[in-house]
Amino acid sequence: MVQRSTGQEAVQLDQLSQQLGIQFAYPNSNKIYLQGSRADIRVPLREIAQDDTVTDTGREANPPIPVYDTSGAYGDPSARINLKQGLPHIRSAWLDERGDTEILNGLSSEYGLQRAHDPKTAHLRFNQITRPRRAKAGKNVSQMHYARQGIITPEMEFVALRERLKMDEVFRDPRYAKLIKQHAGESFGANLPRTPDDITPEFVRREIAAGRAIIPANINHPELEPMIIGRNFRVKINGNLGNSAVTSSLTEEVEKMVWALRWGADTIMDLSTGAHIHETREWIIRNAPVPIGTVPIYQALEKVGGVAEDLTWDLFRDTLIEQAEQGVDYFTIHAGVLLRYVPLTAERLTGIVSRGGSIMAKWCLAHHQENFLYTHFDEICDIMKAYDVSFSLGDGLRPGCIADANDAAQFGELHTLGELTAKAWQHDVQVMIEGPGHVPLQRVKQNMTEELQHCFEAPFYTLGPLVTDIAPAYDHITSGIGAANIGWYGTAMLCYVTPKEHLGLPDKEDVRTGIITYKLAAHAADLAKGWVGAQLRDNALSKARFEFRWRDQFRLSLDPERAESYHDQTLPAEGAKIAHFCSMCGPKFCSMKITQEVRDYAAAQKGMQEKAIEFVQKGSELYR
Amino acid sequence: MVQRSTGQEAVQLDQLSQQLGIQFAYPNSNKIYLQGSRADIRVPLREIAQDDTVTDTGREANPPIPVYDTSGAYGDPSARINLKQGLPHIRSAWLDERGDTEILNGLSSEYGLQRAHDPKTAHLRFNQITRPRRAKAGKNVSQMHYARQGIITPEMEFVALRERLKMDEVFRDPRYAKLIKQHAGESFGANLPRTPDDITPEFVRREIAAGRAIIPANINHPELEPMIIGRNFRVKINGNLGNSAVTSSLTEEVEKMVWALRWGADTIMDLSTGAHIHETREWIIRNAPVPIGTVPIYQALEKVGGVAEDLTWDLFRDTLIEQAEQGVDYFTIHAGVLLRYVPLTAERLTGIVSRGGSIMAKWCLAHHQENFLYTHFDEICDIMKAYDVSFSLGDGLRPGCIADANDAAQFGELHTLGELTAKAWQHDVQVMIEGPGHVPLQRVKQNMTEELQHCFEAPFYTLGPLVTDIAPAYDHITSGIGAANIGWYGTAMLCYVTPKEHLGLPDKEDVRTGIITYKLAAHAADLAKGWVGAQLRDNALSKARFEFRWRDQFRLSLDPERAESYHDQTLPAEGAKIAHFCSMCGPKFCSMKITQEVRDYAAAQKGMQEKAIEFVQKGSELYR
Repeated sequence: MVQRSTGQEAVQLDQLSQQLGIQFAYPNSNKIYLQGSRADIRVPLREIAQDDTVTDTGREANPPIPVYDTSGAYGDPSARINLKQGLPHIRSAWLDERGDTEILNGLSSEYGLQRAHDPKTAHLRFNQITRPRRAKAGKNVSQMHYARQGIITPEMEFVALRERLKMDEVFRDPRYAKLIKQHAGESFGANLPRTPDDITPEFVRREIAAGRAIIPANINHPELEPMIIGRNFRVKINGNLGNSAVTSSLTEEVEKMVWALRWGADTIMDLSTGAHIHETREWIIRNAPVPIGTVPIYQALEKVGGVAEDLTWDLFRDTLIEQAEQGVDYFTIHAGVLLRYVPLTAERLTGIVSRGGSIMAKWCLAHHQENFLYTHFDEICDIMKAYDVSFSLGDGLRPGCIADANDAAQFGELHTLGELTAKAWQHDVQVMIEGPGHVPLQRVKQNMTEELQHCFEAPFYTLGPLVTDIAPAYDHITSGIGAANIGWYGTAMLCYVTPKEHLGLPDKEDVRTGIITYKLAAHAADLAKGWVGAQLRDNALSKARFEFRWRDQFRLSLDPERAESYHDQTLPAEGAKIAHFCSMCGPKFCSMKITQEVRDYAAAQKGMQEKAIEFVQKGSELYR
Repeated sequence: MVQRSTGQEAVQLDQLSQQLGIQFAYPNSNKIYLQGSRADIRVPLREIAQDDTVTDTGREANPPIPVYDTSGAYGDPSARINLKQGLPHIRSAWLDERGDTEILNGLSSEYGLQRAHDPKTAHLRFNQITRPRRAKAGKNVSQMHYARQGIITPEMEFVALRERLKMDEVFRDPRYAKLIKQHAGESFGANLPRTPDDITPEFVRREIAAGRAIIPANINHPELEPMIIGRNFRVKINGNLGNSAVTSSLTEEVEKMVWALRWGADTIMDLSTGAHIHETREWIIRNAPVPIGTVPIYQALEKVGGVAEDLTWDLFRDTLIEQAEQGVDYFTIHAGVLLRYVPLTAERLTGIVSRGGSIMAKWCLAHHQENFLYTHFDEICDIMKAYDVSFSLGDGLRPGCIADANDAAQFGELHTLGELTAKAWQHDVQVMIEGPGHVPLQRVKQNMTEELQHCFEAPFYTLGPLVTDIAPAYDHITSGIGAANIGWYGTAMLCYVTPKEHLGLPDKEDVRTGIITYKLAAHAADLAKGWVGAQLRDNALSKARFEFRWRDQFRLSLDPERAESYHDQTLPAEGAKIAHFCSMCGPKFCSMKITQEVRDYAAAQKGMQEKAIEFVQKGSELYR
């Protein structure tokens, strides 16, 4: 890793803080907040204002289009960003009021304490660290536990409003009448809300109680704007970040996180493997309005110098507590990599490609013992419920190529993840299940079917899957194809893949491309499932396109900047943005223009026909 | 259009000719030719040579991987390229031998004659124009006609070898044993070959006779390397080119064509709408080893100054003959836009978005007459069979947005295309059917089902479809998702979409991105359908990836240059390309490396177990 000096890192963070407000505003958009049942439930969304439609007979207003917003304070021009300070603690009152947590006097993990007092890393340390919060003895603070008690938490109400996205108002407002038309979905047995009014806090509670959805929300992440992951809600996407031994710095990671949120990441996984994992994570969480996930075994391995055999349960346990007290919202735990499954991978074309999976496999073989994550699973649950960390049960044996898809090792592990799901639910701990990987298109659905059946409908969280191996540098696309399909079939969250997959670490532009690709895949899945109101944005954009409201077409798109810059490469003149033609066909030859003429003609024809009918009718009367 | 001077255009063509040989060679590849039953059937393919696998016990050779090749002479380092000369006439002897065509004394179209003698365009004219060929009176020279007579043409033999791609040899060669393993496909009722040996000239003949496949091969396109389009063959892709009134020049279009072939376009559509359409097309066809398609109504409209109402059958007829005598292999004909369907589009969100469709709709309404392409369809068939031009029956009423998908206008037209298919087949004229457009994922399959049923399994040729409207600048991806799916369901050819769709004209990099996106989508569909041997390349690439043969991973990919450059952005050192780690995880932390250790360990375990069993067995004997 390239070491940065104290001063340099600090200056970079200040510079970034100042840039964020300007850099992250979307064109013609208002960040607004929906008010919940109490003053401190303020649910963010973005409204995209539109220009008027200009016709021969006058102007017609086009209503604003509400869109789901993940950008947190970074997308709010009125917010002041100070990365060194962190985001405001919007959940603190909710946590306090429940009365089932206590503020500890200090950190509980050995490693956390050690790092907090290490003078060598002082210059990298986030200075606003508060004391950690933990469940009181005997208490369970998971959202699932509350849901099963019949309690609707502020977090549940928050996500209900967020998922509904004002569609109750939109559906009743005549200005939207033409825009809300939507094709029926095919939901493969999911029980999606049928109207905006079905998206209630009580609906959220029931889904969480049943294990079909999770709200990853560590009590040590009070900065979080809650979101929900489940197949009866909007399909979500995750963006991966993280430095490795080879490249990247702390500020870069924070910047990439904010950047990923701007484009629409619903959660962020910090997959750092290099130096200063602990410090980087702290910076990320304190500035993260979205859930943060990690793979604790990565850090545990760093602690034993990269020697998998030296991993121990005690060390891993300490790592879980260290990270839970920082506020990590979900942990990838590869507890399904059982000793007996490992030999099933020996004849694979690409063996074990999951890092976590290969670490655990090596440990199992070296000790010839069962995976300690499996044998200590109840103890892990005890930690999870004391902080409300959600499980993301890792697919350590996922296929690394088309040839290895859906094999005995993969599905053996999946079935064990189901067994662990049932166990976690006995503790009222929230669970989602990780999925592949590389799977040819015709075998994608089986993954979803197996997961639903063997993991009891716990939310599925897949990496792609990639539907071919032959397109490195385009694997955001090969995986986007699989992602849209599996999202449609019922996967609740899609882990993004960038163009650099298999080749290198993503830079900022790769992150942007990966996120947008997954946003469009998730949206395609929402449309296909029939998520209520999902088609509003498509309809509004298409209407703008048809009416040559170029600027509205850009504004309503997932990436307004790129859409506008591509347009400007051919027709950069400002006038071209209101021109009734575009660069594809030229001024004389525009299908949309011709269509308008056809429409006028058809209306006139209809008028003539009606007049003729009227005439005949009147005539009939005259001659009767 | 930016006018170029004579000299500048000529210099550019010479420069391009010289560049092509070097520019277009793929790394570590050999262009080879499979010999058919006669000396002049030489079927191109590319073989990608691989490095050895280096293990502790020595070296193991990896066999070359044959891949389908569309690059023509441009991909053959031994070929001399002279764009001013055009490509060699590999089909001339085949055409002569059939004895059913005659070489005309001159062009038959008025417009062609006029342009041939126009001094103003002399500097833009291709100089090697030969006299056109036409069927003798009363003869039908379509491949479908021969097929139905039981004749296997050299074109049919050519495509059989091309589709088989040496897989007969590969499947019998023990070096490939591990690489040919493939998942079973799901073919939705298609009758795909089950083994390489099933891919015979007779199989090709039967498919063409039945109308399930076409070989677009105008007798005036002797430069063509024949290819086949049908759902029982490899899924193909088309790349669109063409200048418009706003931008682009002649040389640029030729260059884009060759460029698109390099990346893998199976056919090219020349959609020019600007000046010098006729001359541009001549340059393209004379240098095209792949079928060229056009939309003749575009040029017809130019001829009447862009006023759709002024179009006449005579003028259109002349345009068909003009283009047929240049060698266009398939014509998009919007004969299904019937008067009665037009009012069905009036309430659409985006009306009629097909240029051809809107022209014909306007003509129909202006004259209040039935579409002249429909009323003159038999006469069009007479032209088609005299030159063997294939129909691409245009979907003039395709949906331009998600909201308009699968509506009465779209399917009404599709059913009429089925009626026209039956009529064309009475003439033994080859047909494919164009399809949408914008369709949400859950409604994609219905398009294929309707097409198969109402168009009697004629090959389907779709544009995408785009599965959401909200991602301008990423519509290669939104459409690639739809394309992979509909290709899997049975679409025979996928028309590419570039990142500039809806925004502007594609430049070279957009063409490359569009083509590669569609190559991967078509390949994903081939895998999903279970095309025999399709998984070979995936398996080879994944084996290379697992063994850290970085260079082989690049070479086997669809875009070796981009894969390598992305890799080099993180780890540019030459040594990193043979390093047993990559930039994602760093040297100490590599899942693939760990997996190899697991594999060695498992093998040792197995050895110990066997020894133990052996010991027990021997022991038993000792103590017996």
